[in-house]
Amino acid sequence: MSAVPPIWLPAPPPGSWRALAVWGGCGPRPRHPAPGLLRALRRALGLGDAELCTPRPAGLAPATLPEGRLPAPVLAELAALLGPGNVASDPGARIAAGCGKSLVDLLRLRQGLPGCVPDAVLHPRHRRDLEGILACCARHGIAMTARGGASSVTQGLACPGPGVALDLRTHMDRILAFNAACQTVTVQPGRYGPALERALERAPELFGAAHRYTCGHFPQSFQFSTVGGWAATRGAGQNSTYFGKIEDLVLALEMVTPAGVLRTGAFPAAATGPDTDQLLLGSEGAFGVLSELTLRVFRRTAEPRRFSYLLPDWAAALGAAREILQDQAGQPSLFRLSDPDETGLLLAAHGLDQPLAAALLDRLGLRPGSRCLLLGSTEGEPGFARHLARRIGRICRRAGALPAGGLPVRAWERGRFLDPYLRDDLLDLGIRVDTLECAAGWDALARVRRAVRAHCGARPRTLCLTHLSHGYAQGASLYFTFVTAPEPEAEPGPDPAAGTRAFQAGILELLVAQGATLSHHHGIGRMAAPFMEAHLGPVQMDLFRAIKRQLDPQNLMNPGGTLGLDRP
Amino acid sequence: MSAVPPIWLPAPPPGSWRALAVWGGCGPRPRHPAPGLLRALRRALGLGDAELCTPRPAGLAPATLPEGRLPAPVLAELAALLGPGNVASDPGARIAAGCGKSLVDLLRLRQGLPGCVPDAVLHPRHRRDLEGILACCARHGIAMTARGGASSVTQGLACPGPGVALDLRTHMDRILAFNAACQTVTVQPGRYGPALERALERAPELFGAAHRYTCGHFPQSFQFSTVGGWAATRGAGQNSTYFGKIEDLVLALEMVTPAGVLRTGAFPAAATGPDTDQLLLGSEGAFGVLSELTLRVFRRTAEPRRFSYLLPDWAAALGAAREILQDQAGQPSLFRLSDPDETGLLLAAHGLDQPLAAALLDRLGLRPGSRCLLLGSTEGEPGFARHLARRIGRICRRAGALPAGGLPVRAWERGRFLDPYLRDDLLDLGIRVDTLECAAGWDALARVRRAVRAHCGARPRTLCLTHLSHGYAQGASLYFTFVTAPEPEAEPGPDPAAGTRAFQAGILELLVAQGATLSHHHGIGRMAAPFMEAHLGPVQMDLFRAIKRQLDPQNLMNPGGTLGLDRP
Repeated sequence: MSAVPPIWLPAPPPGSWRALAVWGGCGPRPRHPAPGLLRALRRALGLGDAELCTPRPAGLAPATLPEGRLPAPVLAELAALLGPGNVASDPGARIAAGCGKSLVDLLRLRQGLPGCVPDAVLHPRHRRDLEGILACCARHGIAMTARGGASSVTQGLACPGPGVALDLRTHMDRILAFNAACQTVTVQPGRYGPALERALERAPELFGAAHRYTCGHFPQSFQFSTVGGWAATRGAGQNSTYFGKIEDLVLALEMVTPAGVLRTGAFPAAATGPDTDQLLLGSEGAFGVLSELTLRVFRRTAEPRRFSYLLPDWAAALGAAREILQDQAGQPSLFRLSDPDETGLLLAAHGLDQPLAAALLDRLGLRPGSRCLLLGSTEGEPGFARHLARRIGRICRRAGALPAGGLPVRAWERGRFLDPYLRDDLLDLGIRVDTLECAAGWDALARVRRAVRAHCGARPRTLCLTHLSHGYAQGASLYFTFVTAPEPEAEPGPDPAAGTRAFQAGILELLVAQGATLSHHHGIGRMAAPFMEAHLGPVQMDLFRAIKRQLDPQNLMNPGGTLGLDRP
Repeated sequence: MSAVPPIWLPAPPPGSWRALAVWGGCGPRPRHPAPGLLRALRRALGLGDAELCTPRPAGLAPATLPEGRLPAPVLAELAALLGPGNVASDPGARIAAGCGKSLVDLLRLRQGLPGCVPDAVLHPRHRRDLEGILACCARHGIAMTARGGASSVTQGLACPGPGVALDLRTHMDRILAFNAACQTVTVQPGRYGPALERALERAPELFGAAHRYTCGHFPQSFQFSTVGGWAATRGAGQNSTYFGKIEDLVLALEMVTPAGVLRTGAFPAAATGPDTDQLLLGSEGAFGVLSELTLRVFRRTAEPRRFSYLLPDWAAALGAAREILQDQAGQPSLFRLSDPDETGLLLAAHGLDQPLAAALLDRLGLRPGSRCLLLGSTEGEPGFARHLARRIGRICRRAGALPAGGLPVRAWERGRFLDPYLRDDLLDLGIRVDTLECAAGWDALARVRRAVRAHCGARPRTLCLTHLSHGYAQGASLYFTFVTAPEPEAEPGPDPAAGTRAFQAGILELLVAQGATLSHHHGIGRMAAPFMEAHLGPVQMDLFRAIKRQLDPQNLMNPGGTLGLDRP
């Protein structure tokens, strides 16, 4: 460790570019990189003391924008429609509605480059407002994007032409119905994750239910993402192996489209032609605006049973993971298997790379550079969860694992929603953290990881950390974290993220080539859009475009390349 | 019982109308109605001895048809494309490809009325043949239907205009790949259920796999239905509560459409826009012809744990069923809860309505006309299955149930695929058996059943038996069996099924009105098509029509009202 630990930057000044760039905005910064993590990064990336000492603040100036492009009469029409205070055109609101939280966004915003932002931000109050906005925008040929938490890491929210953003968080965040018999909750799209979970937990008090409930959907963005955003991007929570992805959780929905309001029925299953829910989930705002979602919920049971294991190597760990997920004893809830590099960093961050612990692990055949950490939990009816945890233990031990108990899971849980804060701190040191994820079959996972690491190895001073999560009997998601050492000079030119973009494109191309999906739960946005045609083929893409034409004939809903439906 | 038990009719003569009408065709008739069942029906329907004595044979004459409507040059072109023996135009093949096994079909065929049949039956050998056929038919404006087992109970196969049927069973029934790592099998659509299961069971011998597998899909039509048919109609097996419906089992597919060949990737999950599989599953031949399906498979574990319980009444039984399915101890495999009427008939069929047994049950508060039989099993890893069975037992006993052991399940399993044979025998006595099914949320199930029974009660001498099956945490399927006493005169007029049709329409309208789906697993076909617009709404139906236009712009794929996409 450098002699002087970094003095991290405080919460950014309100109204600054920085406030738009960092996780949690102007809120308190609940977590900073641990000394162990910095030590490990210094070693892995070959950083000098000077590089690690002094955070370089960026984006402290007030965010500004040129005037919006919408004619005054149109703004007046919208204001009359929505009532006072529901049409905003201040730079902060506009910029926030036009970018997300990918590394590309962060690099741009820190340099005062807003990207393609909408010209006004509207705050619809209900479905009728949405219908009115869509009709008004159709008359004037104005583009629309919908925003929830705007935590997109795929450039999902850009607004290239004249357009408005619909902020669904302001008024459309209510719980509309709770059905204890059917275990469903009907919620508006603008509700944040914690607000949803609070209501479900208080179901006895709020709805007179006999149980407490959870939706089971806890993405890393949980604190700053909304139900609508989850559904629009086909997101997954960190416990999706048990609870399912959002497309498994949505039982019915309502979407306001230029072609009319589309409502699906809340049936447990059906054989009535195409599944319309599955056609609209993941449409990323390009077909219409979600106005209502009915989600399955689950009874809250006892505390989860937490487990962790150190496995001797990646091959053994993959084998054990597959065996667990194909064992038919039920699926674990959290299920997160780190590769040797990520394991090393995690152990270091928690001080477990110290000589004594290291020697002990070594003796057990769990060598650094090879050992893999599996974190997990089981949930559900207590007997079910107990039995499943036992089976998992048996499979892991058979694969040569060392049980490491529940504490590492608790430690991980404490930080589960806080990692994005660390990224901001590291970026202040010039260390860039980016992530990409995919899914593939069990027979492809090792190959996909190898190829991504090889690609990454060609980049100077870049770490590639991998974990497997969101497991299925047929395969799993692979989540890659790329950590790049500071560059002597900031990236030149008008696009400070050009290098990041090119690197992302290289990985995405490779995912398609290696037989992985372009995304398992981040979605496509404009980042992965150029690869959709190669990934899905022209017949499928033309089908998506036909659906788009039917629902949005004027191409006003989140246009400009989303999902590869139109070319920007 | 009547003094003289009926002497059931033997297997029908080859080439006869009857051979086309009865379950299993000219094969041996493995089962006839048990005396107990006949006794119970006699009592319930108020039948006289004479009515039950003498089966009236129908449809023994050879099946004939007018010449097909296709011009000779077109037939020659198809014959040149497909090679010798792969273009058939004999009446038997044509009629069989144009009807299914609904009561409507049976009533018509027994009177020598073929309905709307194709003009030729083609036997494509591979995907390239399908592409050639589609191109040829597009040039000549000829309609196409695809046939598998043709066990449709929804008039899914009619061919109103000049057209051809594609029989996928002849050549396109092969297993193309087995992937043990990912637990998937890739199969052509024409493979029958038993042939698929045999191969999966023999995976160690055939594919060198370490385990034996099952697809877990066992519809009542299992012996005479194909993978393609399951997928085209969104079918469900009787064990779907554990294994999932076919749309949960299909991981990837290939469909040959007039707009080109569409292939989806075999990913465990994805966030790459709409889920194309879920858009094509259930398309009932109206978008294209399925040419390949990749299905999830499951390791065969120990014998299922079978259980049965007698519950005091329908309300208690529904409550217990819901509790079981929301308990989060895992889902049972078979799960079939009969209402009091069906329970009565089942007990009678097995002689359990005799005085001694009846008195005993009565003493336990399990009264006739009120008690409900739950049959079920658990599967999966043995410890999981054991624990789940125990939980189910606890919930049932809390609801006042009497455990009745595994034998009733074994008895049911012996007959699980044979009930359709009984229907033919009963029809020979003039007793008409018809079925309809739906799904609804837990809060709607009691209401839906009440409404259907009220509707049924208005029909003279008609029994309505109901069971709940295919359970979910959010609701379940309700399956209705209607049994109607012989009518003094056969239905008059050119459509011997007019009364049946009108009765079906009444129930379907009522399902929509009561908030149930039009179908949980039989599909829509032309039977339920007129109710689709009311059920799904015009925006959704127009979306389906836009998809249809994109994939099949000339409306050649299974046209004439399927799914309500076009009006006949």
